[in-house]
Order: sequence, then structure tokens, then C-alpha cells
Amino acid sequence: MSEFDEILATGANGATGRFGDGWVIGNAVNGGIVMAAALSALADCLARDPAETTAHVDPVVISAYFTTASLPGEYHVDTEVVRAGRMLSTGAMSVTQQADGQRVERMRAIASFGNLGDLQLDRQPEPPTMPPPEQCLSMHDSPAQFEAPAILHRLDLRLDPASAGWAVGKPSMAGRMRGWLRMADGREPDPLLLMAALDFLPPVAFDLGFMGWAPTLEFTGHVRKRPAPGWLLVELASDTLGGGLMEEDARIWDSTGALVAQSRQLCSIRVPGAGPGKV
Amino acid sequence: MSEFDEILATGANGATGRFGDGWVIGNAVNGGIVMAAALSALADCLARDPAETTAHVDPVVISAYFTTASLPGEYHVDTEVVRAGRMLSTGAMSVTQQADGQRVERMRAIASFGNLGDLQLDRQPEPPTMPPPEQCLSMHDSPAQFEAPAILHRLDLRLDPASAGWAVGKPSMAGRMRGWLRMADGREPDPLLLMAALDFLPPVAFDLGFMGWAPTLEFTGHVRKRPAPGWLLVELASDTLGGGLMEEDARIWDSTGALVAQSRQLCSIRVPGAGPGKV
Repeated sequence: MSEFDEILATGANGATGRFGDGWVIGNAVNGGIVMAAALSALADCLARDPAETTAHVDPVVISAYFTTASLPGEYHVDTEVVRAGRMLSTGAMSVTQQADGQRVERMRAIASFGNLGDLQLDRQPEPPTMPPPEQCLSMHDSPAQFEAPAILHRLDLRLDPASAGWAVGKPSMAGRMRGWLRMADGREPDPLLLMAALDFLPPVAFDLGFMGWAPTLEFTGHVRKRPAPGWLLVELASDTLGGGLMEEDARIWDSTGALVAQSRQLCSIRVPGAGPGKV
Repeated sequence: MSEFDEILATGANGATGRFGDGWVIGNAVNGGIVMAAALSALADCLARDPAETTAHVDPVVISAYFTTASLPGEYHVDTEVVRAGRMLSTGAMSVTQQADGQRVERMRAIASFGNLGDLQLDRQPEPPTMPPPEQCLSMHDSPAQFEAPAILHRLDLRLDPASAGWAVGKPSMAGRMRGWLRMADGREPDPLLLMAALDFLPPVAFDLGFMGWAPTLEFTGHVRKRPAPGWLLVELASDTLGGGLMEEDARIWDSTGALVAQSRQLCSIRVPGAGPGKV
């Protein structure tokens, strides 16, 4: 079993799992992993719903609100089927953990599942031009003082040198980041992994000179197509920033050049005084 | 009281209101109106929560999942405070209506409120260049066979001629639509109205030759700043379409040129055979 699949809730009740230490950034479990755990539990819940068609196996859209940071250890997912529909089936999720003797909510989300099999894309943005993975920068190329968060060891991430200047104190200030991504253990992408991968890269705020924590407040991701095996090309962009809040958009193309997923998140910038302008 | 404010839930329980006939497109109440009603109820709910700061008066982000079409008539909003936080307070909403003797859910949503007062935007995309409102096309300029949906009478909408060709059978096929927008009765914009206005324009699918109904499945909107009074500039864009699903992005600038709101929605295209490619 892959490292990614290990942390997803399984079993008859489908609702309790364990976040491993290997998926953290700082002390907090990566938001993409929290969403994947919740989606996995909702998939189990939908599969047991008598009104649900068995065809709705692909997560198509999720909106997640992160209220407190998830920590390594046991988590619980409560799920509810909102509507089993013709085209999509929709459910709600709440991820909680025990903390200080009480159950604390980490994330509240709504998501819809559908079927993306044999889907043709009629219109899509073309992938950006980028050097091949072997000419991009991996965490092994980073300066000695760079302490890679645990999650980077689960990934094979190769950043475009043009958007990796922040690692040596020279952000491009364009608000862009691009890289090739695959799982270090070879686990191939699928719609569930795509939803998580939309939140795997370092924050695009780094490319604007904000090097602190940029916690996600809200995240909405769409999967547009089942991905082909192989490298994913992930591009982050941000155009709006104000009052300590910024928007971060992510897009993922698969190895065939198909746009397979896209997302927008609202995140908080918590480094007063750093970077451009007042935050 | 403005036409917009009339339909919002009010009163001590803050949870029951009435959708007027004037806000429909086809038979369904506009999704922006349904979201505004739910946000208004959540605002009341937050204001009564003892753990909540009174400063969180602005809707900052909403994610709404539309499960069935809302109809004119009475509606009910159930609300729940998920977390009263320092920067944002988050709640969940469910909009229901009585239909065929039972309560049917129309929309499930999560939203966060914060405070956008005195907020400076440090980074934002510039507004597109557009002819002034008096050189744009209103519904009075539309061909005689055009039957304006009721909601258009509540709005003063002036479309850029460059993106209004669909009204005479000549869509630009660029997947773009731009227009000036204000409320017909002079109600000035605020964050609540912005959330609704993100969903007020005709579907951008029209500009791709899909002239049928394009129901919203999921909508996520961000308000970035309290808007100045006057005209709003609304721009829609879509870059991805496949399998009967498309993404529609909206951005709104206020009369000072500030980017005040942005959204993405996933909608369904239900005109098989029309427009470009297989849907």
C-alpha cells in the first residue's frame, strides 16, 4: 500500500484513520491530506447509500473550510449524504480530532462525486512551457540551511528554476510557482490524489517574498478529468492580496498535457512587515 | 427597502423569508439570491452567538452546492456556527423549501465572515478596458424575440458590445462576457450584494454558443474589499469545458477600479449537440 493510501480512512465504518508524522508542514498536517481523508470517508459513505448510483466514484468538486490545524494522530470523519443525484452526488464532511480532552473540529467540507470516465475535454488552457524534470530543482538542490518539511520527502517535486528563486532569497515577485510532481513511492495519480496535490506545493506567497506560514482558510478544488500515469505539471498563481488575505490558484496538467484539476484557495499571510506593501 | 433587501431573511429567528417572483430565470430563483438569503440568515446567527466578535460583519467567502432549483415562495434557512474565530467566523447553511408535502433541500453551503473595513489591496488585477455604460447594450437594445428573464428587470446591466454577440446569434466563442452592473432601484453595492452579483450575469456559456440553461452545481465566491458606490464592472470567463461540465470565473471591480470580488463556479451544460465539440 502506498504512503498516501495508508492515511486514508478505511474499514466498515470508514470514518476513523490516522495522520502519520510524514505529512506535516511545521506542526500541521497538510490540508490536501486532510481533504483526501475526508473524501475517502465520503466515498465509502456514498457507496453504502441505497439511493446512490454506484457510478459516482470520482471526486469532482470539494470546498473545505479549515478551522484549526490538524495534528499527526487519530482523526475522525463524520459524513452525511446531502443528495444522491443523477449527474453528481453531494455530501458533507467534518474532520475532528481529540485535543485537550475534547473533540475539536479541524475541517468542514462539502463535496460532489460524479463519473469522469471516458470524458473528453472540449476546451482547456494549454500547459505552460517548462524545462523537463531533470533540468528542474528538487529539494536535494536546495541550500544547506533549507529544512524540508516532512511532506516533501513523500513527493518527488521538481521546481522550475524560474519560480524557485525564493529558496535562495530571490523571489521573482510575479506570484507564480511551477513544478513537476509525482509521489516519491511511485503511487500513480487518480482524482483523489489530484485533490490533495492541488495543495502539495509550497505556498505561492513565497514567490512574493512572504516566507512565513500561509494557512489555508478555504479551498475549492475541481477535478476535470482522470489523470494519465506519470508526471503532473502543477502551476500556482496569485493575483489578489490584501488585508492579510490572499487568493492562490492551482492548475494541474497530466503527462498527456490535459488540464486535469484546478483550485482556488483563500489563505492567510502571517508575516507582518515582510514582502510588498501592508498586510 | 430595496428589492434586493426585501427577499432576505429577517426577524428574530432570522431563518424564514420569501423569494419573490421577480428574481427568477426560467422557473428557478437565481442562485445569487439564494446565497444572499442564506448569508443574511448566517449573519443573524453569528450576531447572536456569544463566542462571536461583533466585528465579523462582512461575508468574505462562501461555497454553495445547489442540489435542486429554488422556486418563488417561502424558504427556510437552517444555520450552524462552525467556529467563531479571531480573523474569520465560519458557519454552515441549508436552504429548504416545502415541495410536494415535504421539505426539500435547495442549497447546502459553508461561509466565513470577517471584517473588510479599511482594507488596502496590495495586489490586484487591473480592470479590463471597456466602453462606458452609455455605449454598452442594455436589455432594451436586445432583439424583439429576446424574452428577458424576470431578474434582468431588477438590474441595470450594460453588456460590452464585444461580448454581447450571442444575443444576435453571433457568440464570440472566446468564452468571455463583460458588463456594467447596478441595481435598477439604486440599491448601492455592499459585500452581501457582491456575493449575489457574482452570479447575476447571463451564463458565459452563451458566448461559446451554448444557449440553454447552465445550472450552477457549485459556486465559491470571495469578497476582497467593501465596494465603493456606483457601477460595478463584471467580467466572466471560462477556460475549461468537458463532459457537460464547465467552469465559469467571475470578477467584479468597483467604480474606483478596485477588484472587490471574484468567484468560480462549476456549472452543467445541458444542450447536447449545440456549441463546440461533444458535451
